[in-house]
Amino acid sequence: MSPVDREILRARAYLLRVAEPPAWDTGVLVEQLGPVAAADAIRRGDVPDAVATQTRARRATTLADDDLAAAAAAGVRLVVPESPEWPHWPFSAFTVSGIEELAPPLALWVRGSGDLAELCDRAVAIVGARAATGYGTHVAAELGAGLAAGGQTVVSGAAIGIDGAAHRGALSAGGPTVAALACGPDRAYPASHAPLLERIATSGLVVSEYPPGAVPARHRFLVRNRLIAGMSAGTVVVEAARRSGAQRTASDAGALGRVLMAVPGPVTSAGSVGCHELIRRGALLVTRAEEVREATGRLGIDLADEPEGPRRVTDGLDPVQLRVHDALPARAARDTGWLAVEAGVPLDSVRSALVELERRGLVEHREGRWQRPARTRDEQPV
Amino acid sequence: MSPVDREILRARAYLLRVAEPPAWDTGVLVEQLGPVAAADAIRRGDVPDAVATQTRARRATTLADDDLAAAAAAGVRLVVPESPEWPHWPFSAFTVSGIEELAPPLALWVRGSGDLAELCDRAVAIVGARAATGYGTHVAAELGAGLAAGGQTVVSGAAIGIDGAAHRGALSAGGPTVAALACGPDRAYPASHAPLLERIATSGLVVSEYPPGAVPARHRFLVRNRLIAGMSAGTVVVEAARRSGAQRTASDAGALGRVLMAVPGPVTSAGSVGCHELIRRGALLVTRAEEVREATGRLGIDLADEPEGPRRVTDGLDPVQLRVHDALPARAARDTGWLAVEAGVPLDSVRSALVELERRGLVEHREGRWQRPARTRDEQPV
Repeated sequence: MSPVDREILRARAYLLRVAEPPAWDTGVLVEQLGPVAAADAIRRGDVPDAVATQTRARRATTLADDDLAAAAAAGVRLVVPESPEWPHWPFSAFTVSGIEELAPPLALWVRGSGDLAELCDRAVAIVGARAATGYGTHVAAELGAGLAAGGQTVVSGAAIGIDGAAHRGALSAGGPTVAALACGPDRAYPASHAPLLERIATSGLVVSEYPPGAVPARHRFLVRNRLIAGMSAGTVVVEAARRSGAQRTASDAGALGRVLMAVPGPVTSAGSVGCHELIRRGALLVTRAEEVREATGRLGIDLADEPEGPRRVTDGLDPVQLRVHDALPARAARDTGWLAVEAGVPLDSVRSALVELERRGLVEHREGRWQRPARTRDEQPV
Repeated sequence: MSPVDREILRARAYLLRVAEPPAWDTGVLVEQLGPVAAADAIRRGDVPDAVATQTRARRATTLADDDLAAAAAAGVRLVVPESPEWPHWPFSAFTVSGIEELAPPLALWVRGSGDLAELCDRAVAIVGARAATGYGTHVAAELGAGLAAGGQTVVSGAAIGIDGAAHRGALSAGGPTVAALACGPDRAYPASHAPLLERIATSGLVVSEYPPGAVPARHRFLVRNRLIAGMSAGTVVVEAARRSGAQRTASDAGALGRVLMAVPGPVTSAGSVGCHELIRRGALLVTRAEEVREATGRLGIDLADEPEGPRRVTDGLDPVQLRVHDALPARAARDTGWLAVEAGVPLDSVRSALVELERRGLVEHREGRWQRPARTRDEQPV
């Protein structure tokens, strides 16, 4: 990829540090002046009030070079809107939303071998509860694997529970996956997921708006969730309590015009309450990766197969044929007149129905009467 | 209730026996001529072709008096459109549908102490698989009990599995319940449900379009399903395989303009596949009796409470207050200047945020610095 001017990188690194995301007004100033001039104006304090409010507390910090050096040492690079791998199209939804809380990121620290724009193409977010059940983690892993096998990127937040299971599922299918963090891209949070984050970076990306070393704070998880939604064509919620970060991601996905999906579960499980609420409010119920692909994939190409139902020997019979078939007792022979009265069907209709039933091997003719062949006798009525 | 003319009962008993339901054209003739004249015309064979097709095979049967006598002996009565307890309003949907398979019943044999029209007011059907899981029968019983406790009648088909659990749930809450059978109202099908059917008849009703002694046949289950849908303001499917009688009842409910609902379950369970398909096609996901009542009950009165979510000490904080709160380390004291930089919030905003946080007991002021009180330190970020 073509290198980005060092001054732009320094300016964007400075902007990420002084303006705690989401920083709508600062973003607008950057759009107007360009990143270098905007950073200079902020440093001087020569900015509109709204931008001053977002930047006053930290505008004197001079850590851009330190951040870039620390990042390089940790294998982290800064992807900026001026980079070829910036996902302009998916991120345009932030600007279009007009919602301050959904301000577009000013840049992203990323770690890993993936290309951000490529990974955001046909990406799907899988999010859910940290306190997941065995059912939830099983389903998240299956979905992650199924989506990866179908060529889609799985995006999540690297948390324990559903997030981790989704990343692992994608990795198990050999697919790249993207983790968006609420702390610096060089930190492992949770600590127990350090090996998982390493594996994610091998083929995919770990991304963050927060500079190297930044600690996770609660509001950063909520702010980070908008990135997960924004990088993806759709968001699947797998297990969520009623009030949860996953539901916030879901709400962001809706506000960004993305497909919102939820996996149902037992109504007796508190872990599925949030998912059921989302579905009742309009989220698409999904049960399999194919259904997610159909909802997020290419029109007319990524269609889910209908699940197979059981086949019955009587499939395809018309109502009269079915009535005659059912009128015949399981283990006794009857004549056509008896069948007509029992089925309530005229004699000539009984005769033509019997022709078709015999052709299908569902009845046998013997000594002027009809009976069922032995092999079909045990089927239950529906 | 006022007695119905004996000739009308004999005519309708005859019509039920000669015209296998659903018999749209026969019903139209009965509407035109009245039941007595229509029965005479059918007996003579002096009817339009469509009616002749429906009645030719059995028109010579003369079992009306026998059926009425057998019914009386079994505690069964014939409820006809001329009876005060005929549910005219719910059943008008059959006629309005214009669908031959959803022809209105010509009369109903009923057993039990309930009043049919009263029971159909605010009734809800609960249907589902015979091969139900423990989860499904648990949910069906809970729903049945919850609806009965809320004053709604539970309608089902008395089959093993979901149907039986729904009836039992309603009975356990002291509510009346209605079972629609695909055989004569004097028969127990399945045989193991004979005691259940007795209990249903004690406070509710066992109903059937089929004369005393009639055997269950497969097509009769499908035909019976329209009655279950038609007697109810809505139908809830609890567990159904992809192709199932329950889905047929659901489809009938939709065609009759009734509310169609389905209970989700684990996506790993074959028993919930049919429910998930229904929800994906527009059925309302329901998890509790209150949600069913809201969808089928009186407008503005039968509203479901929102389920309670967990409460957090930080509920109600604005975004700046939350950022300041989260910036403070769990176990260290910091001054306002440090908090401003860490939270990325101007100093004056930090000060007003701290006032509110202190008022709520979320921060303490000590020797010029701020810290968290011990009791709030262990909360996890979201």
